[in-house]
Formats: sequence, structure tokens, C-alpha cells
Amino acid sequence: MAAPENVVTLAEKYAQVRALWSPHAVAEFNGLHVKLARVHGEFVWHTHEDTDEVFLVNKGVLTVELKGRDAVTLQTGDMFVVPAGVEHRPTAEHECEILLIEPAGTPNTGDEATAVEVPWL
Amino acid sequence: MAAPENVVTLAEKYAQVRALWSPHAVAEFNGLHVKLARVHGEFVWHTHEDTDEVFLVNKGVLTVELKGRDAVTLQTGDMFVVPAGVEHRPTAEHECEILLIEPAGTPNTGDEATAVEVPWL
Repeated sequence: MAAPENVVTLAEKYAQVRALWSPHAVAEFNGLHVKLARVHGEFVWHTHEDTDEVFLVNKGVLTVELKGRDAVTLQTGDMFVVPAGVEHRPTAEHECEILLIEPAGTPNTGDEATAVEVPWL
Repeated sequence: MAAPENVVTLAEKYAQVRALWSPHAVAEFNGLHVKLARVHGEFVWHTHEDTDEVFLVNKGVLTVELKGRDAVTLQTGDMFVVPAGVEHRPTAEHECEILLIEPAGTPNTGDEATAVEVPWL
């Protein structure tokens, strides 16, 4: 686990993420986790009722489909906030590295029954 | 002001930041602001008693001096969390672009009397 007082070199951490759609925590602040994930293909449609979710693309292109509004496409270095309660589905045509910020314990699928564990890097 | 539903291209936003030590907000989530700043030289020693503060270096080298513990040096792509209550002073020998995350309204100097306004980009 990365102690809060450590410097986190994101490139080194991304290199340790192998599995797809499996966010890994790299920092914690104010009860939120900064998480890194490697994604490719389509995730599931889901909603976080109680929290906004920050997406920042480190490498690649990420599309976030949004229920009831136009999808957004994020290039490397782009950030987007999915507001709480908005159903969404991240997709990536090619493998893509993303950074996520949301409260510790937020299920990645919006549902604790199907969510993956979030290990620390 | 950047509406939360907009994609934020960080490189474009950094290009609009001219003044030193003047954070500009680019996104909001869960009551927190993501802010960009251009820094050079030494800031003031200060403390945020009630919130952790996230630093992420976009370009350059940032040193964060910490009261009572070793200073940390962040290269491009490095992240660091200053825990709430820890007195600190950011410094940069050369001009440096940083991203900050902390609650909306957090005074950059730790003191509302001396803090700068945080405009939106």
C-alpha cells in the first residue's frame, strides 16, 4: 500500500497494472481514492448514485457513453467528470490507461455484488 | 466556467495560465476543485488544517518542503498528497505546471486573508 506521504510516480504504477478493467489505488486523500486502470473494449452500463467520478486519460482514447446525452471522447490528457446519478459506460477501442478519482469503496460496476476488489499498488 | 459535463483538455487549460502561484479551476467533483497552476520560486509556508491536498506535476520539477519531515521532490507525472494539518511550502527552481485537488474554497495560502481568488478556466 502506498502511504500518503510517498511520492507516487504514475508511469511506474501504470506499468504494474496488467488486468483490464481492474482499478488499482495509488493515493488517498479526504477519503477518496486515486486509482489507475488499464481498459480495452466495453465496460458495463452503471451508475454511482452518491458520487461524481473523475476520469483522466493518461494514454489512449476513452469514450464515455452517457444515458440521455451525447457520449464524450477523451484523448490523452483529457479529464471528464461523470456527475452522480448519471448512468454511463466507458469504452475503449484500443487499450487505454486511465486515472479515476472517487470515494474509497465505490464499486466499479456501481453494484457491490459485481464489483472488483481494488488492490493498492 | 467549465461545466462539469465538458471534457477538459488539460494542455489547453495550462496554456491559459499565465500568472504564477494563481490556481485556476478546471473541474469540480463532490465539492472539490481540480485546479491548475504555474509556479516558479518559493511559495509561503502554510497549512490546511481540514483537508489533504493533492499535487500532480504536469511539467517540470516541484519540491514540497514539509515541516518536521524530509522534503519531497516531484518530477513530471509524480503525485503527492500533503496530509491535512502538515505545514508545507511548495518551491520550484524552474517554472513548473502543477495540478491541485482540494475542496472548493480552500485558501491557497491556508489563510483567507491572504489567499488569491480562484478563477475558472
